[in-house]
Amino acid sequence: MKKHLRDNCGVVGIYSTDKKDVSPLMFYAMFSLQHRGQESCGIATYDDSFHTRKDMGLVPEVFNFEKLEKLTGSIGIGHVRYSTTGESIFENSQPFVVTHSKGTIAIGHNGNIINSQELRNKLEAAGQAFTSTTDTEVIAHFIIRELMKDKDIVESIAEVMKMLIGSYSLTLLIDDTLIGVRDPLGIRPLCLGSVDGTHIIASETVALDSIGAKYIRDIKPGEIFLINDSGTESYRPFKLDRKAHCMFEYVYFARPDSVLNKIPVYHVRERLGELLAEEDDIEADFVMAIPDSAIPFALGYSRRSGIQYREGLIRNRYVGRTFILPDQKARELAVRFKLNPMGNELKGKRVVLFDDSIVRGTTSKRVIGILKDSGAEEVHMRVGCPPIISPCNLGIDMPTNEELIASKMSVEEIRKSIGADTLKYSSLEGLKTAIGLDENKLCLGCLTAEYPVELSKYKQVVLSSFIRR
Amino acid sequence: MKKHLRDNCGVVGIYSTDKKDVSPLMFYAMFSLQHRGQESCGIATYDDSFHTRKDMGLVPEVFNFEKLEKLTGSIGIGHVRYSTTGESIFENSQPFVVTHSKGTIAIGHNGNIINSQELRNKLEAAGQAFTSTTDTEVIAHFIIRELMKDKDIVESIAEVMKMLIGSYSLTLLIDDTLIGVRDPLGIRPLCLGSVDGTHIIASETVALDSIGAKYIRDIKPGEIFLINDSGTESYRPFKLDRKAHCMFEYVYFARPDSVLNKIPVYHVRERLGELLAEEDDIEADFVMAIPDSAIPFALGYSRRSGIQYREGLIRNRYVGRTFILPDQKARELAVRFKLNPMGNELKGKRVVLFDDSIVRGTTSKRVIGILKDSGAEEVHMRVGCPPIISPCNLGIDMPTNEELIASKMSVEEIRKSIGADTLKYSSLEGLKTAIGLDENKLCLGCLTAEYPVELSKYKQVVLSSFIRR
Amino acid sequence: MKKHLRDNCGVVGIYSTDKKDVSPLMFYAMFSLQHRGQESCGIATYDDSFHTRKDMGLVPEVFNFEKLEKLTGSIGIGHVRYSTTGESIFENSQPFVVTHSKGTIAIGHNGNIINSQELRNKLEAAGQAFTSTTDTEVIAHFIIRELMKDKDIVESIAEVMKMLIGSYSLTLLIDDTLIGVRDPLGIRPLCLGSVDGTHIIASETVALDSIGAKYIRDIKPGEIFLINDSGTESYRPFKLDRKAHCMFEYVYFARPDSVLNKIPVYHVRERLGELLAEEDDIEADFVMAIPDSAIPFALGYSRRSGIQYREGLIRNRYVGRTFILPDQKARELAVRFKLNPMGNELKGKRVVLFDDSIVRGTTSKRVIGILKDSGAEEVHMRVGCPPIISPCNLGIDMPTNEELIASKMSVEEIRKSIGADTLKYSSLEGLKTAIGLDENKLCLGCLTAEYPVELSKYKQVVLSSFIRR
Amino acid sequence: MKKHLRDNCGVVGIYSTDKKDVSPLMFYAMFSLQHRGQESCGIATYDDSFHTRKDMGLVPEVFNFEKLEKLTGSIGIGHVRYSTTGESIFENSQPFVVTHSKGTIAIGHNGNIINSQELRNKLEAAGQAFTSTTDTEVIAHFIIRELMKDKDIVESIAEVMKMLIGSYSLTLLIDDTLIGVRDPLGIRPLCLGSVDGTHIIASETVALDSIGAKYIRDIKPGEIFLINDSGTESYRPFKLDRKAHCMFEYVYFARPDSVLNKIPVYHVRERLGELLAEEDDIEADFVMAIPDSAIPFALGYSRRSGIQYREGLIRNRYVGRTFILPDQKARELAVRFKLNPMGNELKGKRVVLFDDSIVRGTTSKRVIGILKDSGAEEVHMRVGCPPIISPCNLGIDMPTNEELIASKMSVEEIRKSIGADTLKYSSLEGLKTAIGLDENKLCLGCLTAEYPVELSKYKQVVLSSFIRR
Repeated sequence: MKKHLRDNCGVVGIYSTDKKDVSPLMFYAMFSLQHRGQESCGIATYDDSFHTRKDMGLVPEVFNFEKLEKLTGSIGIGHVRYSTTGESIFENSQPFVVTHSKGTIAIGHNGNIINSQELRNKLEAAGQAFTSTTDTEVIAHFIIRELMKDKDIVESIAEVMKMLIGSYSLTLLIDDTLIGVRDPLGIRPLCLGSVDGTHIIASETVALDSIGAKYIRDIKPGEIFLINDSGTESYRPFKLDRKAHCMFEYVYFARPDSVLNKIPVYHVRERLGELLAEEDDIEADFVMAIPDSAIPFALGYSRRSGIQYREGLIRNRYVGRTFILPDQKARELAVRFKLNPMGNELKGKRVVLFDDSIVRGTTSKRVIGILKDSGAEEVHMRVGCPPIISPCNLGIDMPTNEELIASKMSVEEIRKSIGADTLKYSSLEGLKTAIGLDENKLCLGCLTAEYPVELSKYKQVVLSSFIRR
Repeated sequence: MKKHLRDNCGVVGIYSTDKKDVSPLMFYAMFSLQHRGQESCGIATYDDSFHTRKDMGLVPEVFNFEKLEKLTGSIGIGHVRYSTTGESIFENSQPFVVTHSKGTIAIGHNGNIINSQELRNKLEAAGQAFTSTTDTEVIAHFIIRELMKDKDIVESIAEVMKMLIGSYSLTLLIDDTLIGVRDPLGIRPLCLGSVDGTHIIASETVALDSIGAKYIRDIKPGEIFLINDSGTESYRPFKLDRKAHCMFEYVYFARPDSVLNKIPVYHVRERLGELLAEEDDIEADFVMAIPDSAIPFALGYSRRSGIQYREGLIRNRYVGRTFILPDQKARELAVRFKLNPMGNELKGKRVVLFDDSIVRGTTSKRVIGILKDSGAEEVHMRVGCPPIISPCNLGIDMPTNEELIASKMSVEEIRKSIGADTLKYSSLEGLKTAIGLDENKLCLGCLTAEYPVELSKYKQVVLSSFIRR
Repeated sequence: MKKHLRDNCGVVGIYSTDKKDVSPLMFYAMFSLQHRGQESCGIATYDDSFHTRKDMGLVPEVFNFEKLEKLTGSIGIGHVRYSTTGESIFENSQPFVVTHSKGTIAIGHNGNIINSQELRNKLEAAGQAFTSTTDTEVIAHFIIRELMKDKDIVESIAEVMKMLIGSYSLTLLIDDTLIGVRDPLGIRPLCLGSVDGTHIIASETVALDSIGAKYIRDIKPGEIFLINDSGTESYRPFKLDRKAHCMFEYVYFARPDSVLNKIPVYHVRERLGELLAEEDDIEADFVMAIPDSAIPFALGYSRRSGIQYREGLIRNRYVGRTFILPDQKARELAVRFKLNPMGNELKGKRVVLFDDSIVRGTTSKRVIGILKDSGAEEVHMRVGCPPIISPCNLGIDMPTNEELIASKMSVEEIRKSIGADTLKYSSLEGLKTAIGLDENKLCLGCLTAEYPVELSKYKQVVLSSFIRR
Repeated sequence: MKKHLRDNCGVVGIYSTDKKDVSPLMFYAMFSLQHRGQESCGIATYDDSFHTRKDMGLVPEVFNFEKLEKLTGSIGIGHVRYSTTGESIFENSQPFVVTHSKGTIAIGHNGNIINSQELRNKLEAAGQAFTSTTDTEVIAHFIIRELMKDKDIVESIAEVMKMLIGSYSLTLLIDDTLIGVRDPLGIRPLCLGSVDGTHIIASETVALDSIGAKYIRDIKPGEIFLINDSGTESYRPFKLDRKAHCMFEYVYFARPDSVLNKIPVYHVRERLGELLAEEDDIEADFVMAIPDSAIPFALGYSRRSGIQYREGLIRNRYVGRTFILPDQKARELAVRFKLNPMGNELKGKRVVLFDDSIVRGTTSKRVIGILKDSGAEEVHMRVGCPPIISPCNLGIDMPTNEELIASKMSVEEIRKSIGADTLKYSSLEGLKTAIGLDENKLCLGCLTAEYPVELSKYKQVVLSSFIRR
């Protein structure tokens, strides 16, 4: 149901101090991050030489036992992708692997580099040619340029970070070293875990859970974290006064069972439901959610309001990413088909309906239509995320201003458009309260059109000077 | 998580009075019944000649636009299958299509014929040979034998029904006539719907919903229902004093949004949770469910007990039927991987954990282990279905007595074995109350070892004489 | 180039007295008979129970190492198929396996039963139903009927042979016994070989060669040959005064390196070329052939006439059965593409062009066109097989009378139609001389319209009485 | 049978002045060059933007109608590949497409750059990174570097040609211009044709034949040939005193129906057979060849010696590149299986056996063994190509010195090793006579160890100065 809001990417890096092959664990970690990208995926491992496999498709479609077995090596990175920049073609799949005079570098990227084209132009002017259309290739080439100048890995990465404007959580293999990097604003998540001598760096804690690893800590904004035979090292050349954790990871994008920046995603969603209930005085027979992502909001609302929670729509669990729509009439049945209303529950009932967010408004409209067709007397729409008025340029694939319903319409206009009896969104204040962070710690760009990096000028963020510690 | 309890089958029949091709609608109807069988599926249509396609795999794997287009015809039957009898091989996939001197017959079957081997022996003794190992082929050959005697379709089917002991919901194509048949005890469900001149017969009402059809009524126990150019006809040669609707359809097998024999499945599940709450006095921090099937039980319990409902396990929505388990260590991670515990929710908490049923006890044990590992202080297991003490021979694939935990252990022994702090099952009385039918309307064989048909003797049920109406 | 003349089938049976799995050898034997059928293939083995796999596709497409490994058993039969009767659908692929009260029977068939429909009607009238549209299912059911009467295997098969009119080389598994059967006229080939305790029955000697087996002898017309733990047994209940070996196996259908009925196929083809040379006085620069099947004819002609042999057309060895023809213009290039003319060889030259046979005349016309376009001054067409004037009903898939060019036109008319400067066919006398058998040993039906079995009446051939020896 | 001598590559470029899509013609042209590379293939077309598809597999496996339809554009290049440098992985498949500040360049390469590593080092030292391990990427980056200096296309390519030591026939797309380039020694072939306003540049004339195009001329050694909207242009900045056409294209690698540098390949092969016959006085019953490549040699020998030509080995036409070898015993049967000896022909016979060349000697040994096992009394081996004593570094994939049988053994020793009764090779003189070119026009490096480019020093060939004409 979330086609309007496409995923970006997920990254993993695994290092086995016991020199065991990491590809089996990589499989589980990547599969647990599948919600972050369903278009293509890939693994690169190092074992004296590099082994890479990447292809279009879901993790279990691209990798099977035999293919994992060939990816030998006790160090590796993995990537799941839905393109936010670059076309969705094989050439753009990751990890991106390049060789140069000093060795080989493999890189996986989650985020979006705002000044990517500018940087690409700079490289092209210097004679660099490109085989893909991704940000990631730009980052890789800049790192290589620094390595060429006989800088060490940390200096090289730090130098490149100075140039990059935007969001990036990276995992890299530079020969036998696994590196995790997070942008100075900490926009995209990245965390660190370990189990039995195996270290894991990943976009979300569910990847740690998937291999039985213990959460150690988050990679800090602006941090460069290295793991190799000499142990682990941390550098933090960039420390900014503010942070800008993406609020949308909390309200929709991350898995509910992940903990981002020490804040459990599930609690944020429940709390947003509770806060909406506190300000609400609607009378209704029950609270329901568009499954699965809106359930915790609805449960929080139910608990606080005292209005019982019920399941009003049942999802067909066998509907995958794509399936055929054989003819026109049948095509119209498609939404109904994925989400079947519980007619008996709905007839003559007043319901509070939750969704995590409204982007274009089309899903809300269709679902409210289904509920009314099934006999619901009143549908009171409640939305976990405040109105989205401006597109994201930092890694979440959203439509243009034109298509964002809240950038063109007032709440009342939206209510009419989607056919709800009442419509309430979470407030910005409520969102900050629920997450427990203020506007100096969050990126609220899509809600306020004020971005933590100045988009209009592509001006460089002010960086603290580079200090080895 | 329900590998121990494999599905049986789902059947569909569609007839378009407007002479439109039925295969697109068939696709949706079958896909909505996918939970009833994931091993193979097939469609047979009639359009002067018969067109058949069947193969191993899920509905959208076996059928695409091009394949549906070749299945021309305004009348057809469809089938999804998980074998309860017969090996899981291509040869056993359905619909089963046979030609004979009087024409062609296509048949799809949900259920299990107890005296199948006996009947097969009878046919073999009469020289009949078989190309599959299914009940369905036996039924088909007996019908053909009657047709050969110049009996009409209804007489022929009625004659065969006299011989069959067991459960069967059938859809048949006999040339240009679509027929739905249900065993005299009404063990497996079968219902009738219609939309814009299209009639549909299907195992569950969700198939009607999937094509926007209105529920008309259930096919009655012992009824033979025909649709062709002359309209619809109903014969009910067999009417017994009792019915025997499978209780397990209500507690686990059917989709929650289906309505079987006019009773909404979802309400039964909620009610079972409520009834358990009424007899319970446990103190707990919250109620949770093993997703997705146990959720309505848990919600019913929560509502009645006043103990809040929370999500304590998150399911990875991308895990399909099968995926690789690359190595031993990883294999141990598999349950965790599919169901990730919400550590923050569970730490130090006393939880009431719901499952719909306990068959072997292995899933319960593993899940309780995961919850305790995540810090749950107490786990109070509650089970929607009373103890299963005897296998089903009427269409639900259950393990042998040996493997059914409740056939060997007392409730207290089971509690210890699965590691729960307390364990309570629904009572038989509670089950009857929740469904709203007494033992004369239900099949409770797996709970009482008393079956509506005498298994030991394979004796024929007493049938009312055949009367055309 | 031989699309107009589609293949029929090939059969194999293998028995290992050392109890080794036969499926690896089966693979090689079937692959060496691939020219006899490219549509579908299958293997059935016996190992206490039966194991079957069959599918659409070439042998190496349908079988790989893993699939062969599952086909355990030291006894098995294999089949490659291009339908002559029955639609080309999965349901019709072979071996055909049926179970009955006395056991299981697997059967593979090469040939065509002329009175198949009559026999099918008889079975249908007796209540038999069918799951395929093949002759083979008819034969299987009749054998089962006899077995039911408590006849032994040999008696049962002999009884069925009395009913069958037409051509059939069969391999059967009846439980642990491998059986080879050949029709009383010996129309289709079938031979016996052995290597290191392994017996093989196959359509052609190349299958023996493929597994390193030594040719023992042909299965005789009317013979039933059994192999099991007690050794081998031969019964020959039917011995006719005449034989009717298909002449077309010699001129086109069999592989050139096979030896049929002790007569090397290659020698027949060379000899036909020689005989044509003896009666010819054309002056030409060189002799060439449409590759590959016409090469031995051309070599024989060259040797006898003294006109040198050259390659004038080169075949693209990578062109498989099917490949796409992306657009109309390109489609016209297709014949040229498969057979590229050697421009330098042809310019200004007078060539003798050989093909094995002319069926519709379309290939001859196109090839002559290509040669003339490439500058050939004269093209003298010579054809190994005498004019085909009547379709085959005994196992070779030929077009109807309407489409057979020689059934409508004189040789001179054909010459004009295909654009040849001169045209000569082998004579019937020449054909008999080349094979070394007279009309009492050959089936010449397609050349004379006189068939060894009376097609018009479907009258039964006179059979000697059944005598066990 | 030629596994020991793997293919290199084939290139195509097509330009439609009528602005028709070229991909359908590209399919045919590439498929006709399939013998030059079976590992991977690809097409890049230009149509305002670039469209690329490449993958592992044969041409009809990688491309179907739908995939070709997406490759829109009236200008394109195609490539079939078997790696001689670089690993056989997807990343190395061609055409190689890179974007840079001035546009995009797509390149396909047949040949081998001897100083590739040196050049790669130079680029790496200048900061260039690589995503593949091919020569082709090196060439592409150097061309881009020159284009960056604001040189035009011809100057840029000419500048790069000055640096390259080795063999190269290239097709390039630089935006809307199709370019063909051939190294100054003309080592690999490249020719030009046209049909109805469509120009084609391809490795061999068979590609021209495949689309009905007329041969215009060869691209000359050292020539840069451009086609775009302004018409065609030819530059020949490099003209050397000598040429070095690869002799192995004539004796084995090119298709027999191709004409290279105006010399028909087929004639060279026939002539080599004739010359061997002139110096031979062996008595034998017949001459035969290892099919298919050695047939013209044998026919030439037969014609001159008067000893008749016969087919002694029949190839299974369905054996593709790979097929499974299910078990050890079966594996030993594999050679026999692909090449079946004609037992009847061979028994007691003295045969002259032709192969085009002997590389490792393993095939010769096995085939002679098969013939002797089949009863051949004497096998007189004759070889079209003189002894190969040194590996090729200019584009033919040959084994190391160690594995080349003629680099370690005398002719007599080889004869004994392969089990022949007598063994004769063509002489160097004979080879030059047959091709009609002397050592100043041919590359005979693998026969004499004297290469046209000095391998030891990687010294640059002397180039005439660059003159625009």
